[in-house]
Amino acid sequence: MQETRLDTARIRAARGAIDPIFRDTPLYRCEALEPDLGCAVSIKLETANPVRSFKARGTEVVASQLADKGSPVVVCGSAGNLGQALAWSGRARGLDVTVVASRFAPAVKLDRIRALGARLELVDGDNEMARARAAAIARHEGIGLLDDSLDIETCEGAATIGLELVEAESSFDAVLIALGGGALATGVGHVMKALAPDVEVICVQPAGAPAMTRSWRQRRVVTTDSTDTIADAVAGRCPIPEVLNDLLLVGDDAVLVQEASIIAGMRVLLENAGLVVEPSAALGVAAILEDRDRFAGRHVVTIVCGSNVDMDAYHRWVDAAAIRRP
Amino acid sequence: MQETRLDTARIRAARGAIDPIFRDTPLYRCEALEPDLGCAVSIKLETANPVRSFKARGTEVVASQLADKGSPVVVCGSAGNLGQALAWSGRARGLDVTVVASRFAPAVKLDRIRALGARLELVDGDNEMARARAAAIARHEGIGLLDDSLDIETCEGAATIGLELVEAESSFDAVLIALGGGALATGVGHVMKALAPDVEVICVQPAGAPAMTRSWRQRRVVTTDSTDTIADAVAGRCPIPEVLNDLLLVGDDAVLVQEASIIAGMRVLLENAGLVVEPSAALGVAAILEDRDRFAGRHVVTIVCGSNVDMDAYHRWVDAAAIRRP
Repeated sequence: MQETRLDTARIRAARGAIDPIFRDTPLYRCEALEPDLGCAVSIKLETANPVRSFKARGTEVVASQLADKGSPVVVCGSAGNLGQALAWSGRARGLDVTVVASRFAPAVKLDRIRALGARLELVDGDNEMARARAAAIARHEGIGLLDDSLDIETCEGAATIGLELVEAESSFDAVLIALGGGALATGVGHVMKALAPDVEVICVQPAGAPAMTRSWRQRRVVTTDSTDTIADAVAGRCPIPEVLNDLLLVGDDAVLVQEASIIAGMRVLLENAGLVVEPSAALGVAAILEDRDRFAGRHVVTIVCGSNVDMDAYHRWVDAAAIRRP
Repeated sequence: MQETRLDTARIRAARGAIDPIFRDTPLYRCEALEPDLGCAVSIKLETANPVRSFKARGTEVVASQLADKGSPVVVCGSAGNLGQALAWSGRARGLDVTVVASRFAPAVKLDRIRALGARLELVDGDNEMARARAAAIARHEGIGLLDDSLDIETCEGAATIGLELVEAESSFDAVLIALGGGALATGVGHVMKALAPDVEVICVQPAGAPAMTRSWRQRRVVTTDSTDTIADAVAGRCPIPEVLNDLLLVGDDAVLVQEASIIAGMRVLLENAGLVVEPSAALGVAAILEDRDRFAGRHVVTIVCGSNVDMDAYHRWVDAAAIRRP
């Protein structure tokens, strides 16, 4: 294949920088999901760790490098999971971490960022505004900026999930990956294309935040004016050109799913797998629910990428789905 | 120490018989729990696997041995988790598995036993009656009997959790272990006493099913006429003398907790850790909630041993706890 910005040898090396607590996460067939989903489903669970998302795989790499370089001050814009992960990784290495987030981010994410000792700055806008504000702080204060998905370490850290998938005993036909900024999708996708090219790499995004999917389909950056989705972790409007280029090389498909399907996916994961997940982590199941014929007879892995969800909202969504059910 | 029936070398060897999917489970500090619990808490998560409990560690050992011996027919009495695990391990090795369970066991447990291809026989009574009926079937049909906690493989399989705890980078002051028949408590307790004798081994049982705890305290088998607890997985009445003897050697304490504390524990694990657990898996947190002073300033591990819970009952318990909260 044409070359992405990612490097497989560097991804292997990245594992050494990541605290083992975030690596070798559970990967298991979940047959109890299968009557509802109509295909063989395995779960790659990225929530059973101190920050309840996959994001620390990237921030561990970043924080290690910053510590090695003697650059102890860093800022990032975040929908919440990256910020929490950077706060954790930075605290472990004595870094001074600032996180910029939307004031509309889930309280549980903001609370954990603060609890982990990071400075938290809130913006009166969305994730893109938080990202822009972080860049401005970095310029103004002359400190390090962590730019999610653009900084290759965030992609290569996430890509270590891909290594664990290809090293697993079972083989898979497809992997379903939540698509936001693209670190997870390009990371895992790169490893699949490099080491398991028969596995279909399917990116899943909410129809209410379709910028990267539209960009992938049109093979050029397409932005949107707004987002409208409960999947706060993937609610971006402005795809990064370098990340889109990589995604064009490693993604086999990018699909959009409805909000009702995301909620139905969360409910299926709760009721049949006993898993509380945040909306972005239900995107894969939502994609199966919307297109069962596509997956029938195949073995699909879905990456359950985060569980940082405000429980009040969670109950509201999931209980409402129960009422709508026949 | 005096010798239990368990053997540390055999426990190490047992790991080789256990499918890796059940081993090296997540172990992580969960700081979000700590404001509520008043101590450092780590979770050993035994639910992110195909049977959603720790029980497969034991049934993998048992089923391997049966397959090696060419004894392909086996029956067990079970509160549900052991039966599901034996059904899984047996299916993987071509065994013919019968599970006897109470008809009052959670539907999710019974459904999964059937779905995994085991024959399920229900008794109109409790877990002890299921155990007795399984023994009768084994005698009558001349087939193998798996007797949980009495059969050393169930204890030594569970004990592999202990190996993972002592091999972890962090050290702990105490481990909280759900106490039912005693396989988990004697297994993990044995390893702690052998390899990490400074760790306090605390067994936790519902006040509504106190037989083993009373037996431990009185140093002789004490039975009860009935049980009254939502923690179905640990609701026994008739401690096994051999298991009690082992528990007397490895348990530092056995405590009883109230039903309200079990429910509060389930709620704390949901709200602050994003974990759905069955009642028995909340016993450790319940013990902390009932005696915060005892644990203040210490680092405690609690083994989250299962998540097979009927969601209707779960919501009823946890939502009611929310209403009672100030």
